[in-house]
Amino acid sequence: MTRAERLTQALEESRADVFVSAIRPNQLYFLPHPEPSSVLSRANCCAIVFGLGEPVVIPGVWISNACRDLLTDCTVIENMPGDPPPEEQLLAYLRKVGLNRVIVDQPDLVSTLRGQIEGCEVECKDLGTEIRRRKDARDLEHMREAARIADLGMTAAFAAIRPGLSCLDVIAEGEYAMLKAGAEDATMAPAVGEGTFYLDSAENPRRIICEGDMIFIDMAIHVRGYLGDMTRAGIVGEGTQEQRDILETVQRAYRTGAGAMCPGADGADIYRQVVDCFAERGWKEYYVHHLSHGLGLGGDLPRIGSAAADVLQIGDTLSCEPGVYIPGLGGARVENMIYVGENGPEELTRCPLDLPMDL
Amino acid sequence: MTRAERLTQALEESRADVFVSAIRPNQLYFLPHPEPSSVLSRANCCAIVFGLGEPVVIPGVWISNACRDLLTDCTVIENMPGDPPPEEQLLAYLRKVGLNRVIVDQPDLVSTLRGQIEGCEVECKDLGTEIRRRKDARDLEHMREAARIADLGMTAAFAAIRPGLSCLDVIAEGEYAMLKAGAEDATMAPAVGEGTFYLDSAENPRRIICEGDMIFIDMAIHVRGYLGDMTRAGIVGEGTQEQRDILETVQRAYRTGAGAMCPGADGADIYRQVVDCFAERGWKEYYVHHLSHGLGLGGDLPRIGSAAADVLQIGDTLSCEPGVYIPGLGGARVENMIYVGENGPEELTRCPLDLPMDL
Repeated sequence: MTRAERLTQALEESRADVFVSAIRPNQLYFLPHPEPSSVLSRANCCAIVFGLGEPVVIPGVWISNACRDLLTDCTVIENMPGDPPPEEQLLAYLRKVGLNRVIVDQPDLVSTLRGQIEGCEVECKDLGTEIRRRKDARDLEHMREAARIADLGMTAAFAAIRPGLSCLDVIAEGEYAMLKAGAEDATMAPAVGEGTFYLDSAENPRRIICEGDMIFIDMAIHVRGYLGDMTRAGIVGEGTQEQRDILETVQRAYRTGAGAMCPGADGADIYRQVVDCFAERGWKEYYVHHLSHGLGLGGDLPRIGSAAADVLQIGDTLSCEPGVYIPGLGGARVENMIYVGENGPEELTRCPLDLPMDL
Repeated sequence: MTRAERLTQALEESRADVFVSAIRPNQLYFLPHPEPSSVLSRANCCAIVFGLGEPVVIPGVWISNACRDLLTDCTVIENMPGDPPPEEQLLAYLRKVGLNRVIVDQPDLVSTLRGQIEGCEVECKDLGTEIRRRKDARDLEHMREAARIADLGMTAAFAAIRPGLSCLDVIAEGEYAMLKAGAEDATMAPAVGEGTFYLDSAENPRRIICEGDMIFIDMAIHVRGYLGDMTRAGIVGEGTQEQRDILETVQRAYRTGAGAMCPGADGADIYRQVVDCFAERGWKEYYVHHLSHGLGLGGDLPRIGSAAADVLQIGDTLSCEPGVYIPGLGGARVENMIYVGENGPEELTRCPLDLPMDL
């Protein structure tokens, strides 16, 4: 089924006429354009109405001309400076069409619309994020590309790590490599510390890297709107036995978690298995964050953490990112992008867990 | 007067005991640390209480250890995973101290505290942003550095502009130069278009640059927490007479606006003068945004636009950024960082309005 067909089916199941989307990832997903992130380039479009033939796009002034000129398979209600706010134009359009029931994905917009369209119910439901969860071929193509570019950047950043350089010198190489390779934006967050400060807060980007440091680098890039996300950790030089133990334990926890990401697996079980890896070493209290978030165009399902854990489905794409941060020793986190295929987990991230430095 | 003394004076004038700050720029400004942005590295600290001897810092879990270890001239109320939320710890602390009147800079936190401390009034007022408006020597030192690094990056980006390269190739060079020079983060936003789409939306970063394009690049970097912000525009090749007129008019509008930024000048007058530059050419309707925002640690005063315009004061630092975006022709914007000194405006941005390309 195409994306549009899946949406039609979901609308029928909800007995709704249209899906009004104000959330950019949902808009990008359903928009009939080969590169929607280049048109809805910055801000959210105020709203797009899906479900009545051509999508009806109600942009704000900043992207109105781009939408008019580039979205050839849509109806665009233009907005120029001085025009009424796009929310009013949306309301006028919805009133004119005559609807019984609309589904809206954003609470603020629900408040604006509810009670304002005669004879029409307004339901708040993020249909888009539910439908986007199961990745299709186009999702996967772009996410593989995002993972490939992330690999390039992380490899370049680690290859620049050398005592005496600053963290900024290192991430400059990584971000440069990723922009040149086609990432629309690129941010690397390095964490290095003597071990007295930890969690994610050892983030002074001006810090000069020293022999014996533990270092890890997280990142976020976007490729045609899709998130590329990974983390690598290492020791600058030999390090101590304890530091090597931290790194090996985190890598083992990663392999444990990622290996368990099969269709039907309960996220709570996976999380417990990862916690056990740390508990065996007496480090349970130093693993303080979630294990996984969904990947895609943004705000994706599923999630795995201590508070909430979903059951995995075929077609899920998610991170696996265990880490520990131990006072006096240092911290490490490893993160890959995982696709839950019919036959089990597939690592979209391909580069090795240990990356060579410039030592 | 030191920053702490200015705060003490403001508290006395408001008959308040303490200033509770939940806004990161205000926290960075008053924190007694040589590089506060490296400690409050990411998220807001929940709150910092200023005005009773040493500042009392109530961090969230992610930066609790960094605050404990690095903020030696503060009292830090630590927060570990599993501890009560920092807001509760703040409330407990404020109740214990015994206060008559507190000023809080963030509405959400005001709602949390109001009516919860017996005998204590809670006023919502952004004292910090008011005090931060008049820049001191430390502000200026860091803002000059931010402007210097922005100059380097923009010069490097323009030097890479060549038909056949993508926008990403260009901004990769600019962001690389700025990270290597010490920017904590660097984002460049290129806008190129044939003129059919315009405003800020011609932002497809994958676009291949062509002979005859109008191109402009905006940016945001941070240097020790301070924003570096500038925009340059140009024509790829000779362009048409009309394109050259656009560029010259925007540059003249910039010089008109910046030249008028003297102490005591009314922002509304300055804005009118800039609008007149475009009106003379019949392009009034294509100048659709503000002229100036304050610069500093974030959310700064003053502002100059059609909706609101402040009277300028000695010590103000602000952008000057006129632009026009004309269907069928192209767009241009120019932006510099301006300091309002005793004797008139000083451009912190030093690089020329016309930057050489790789043609």
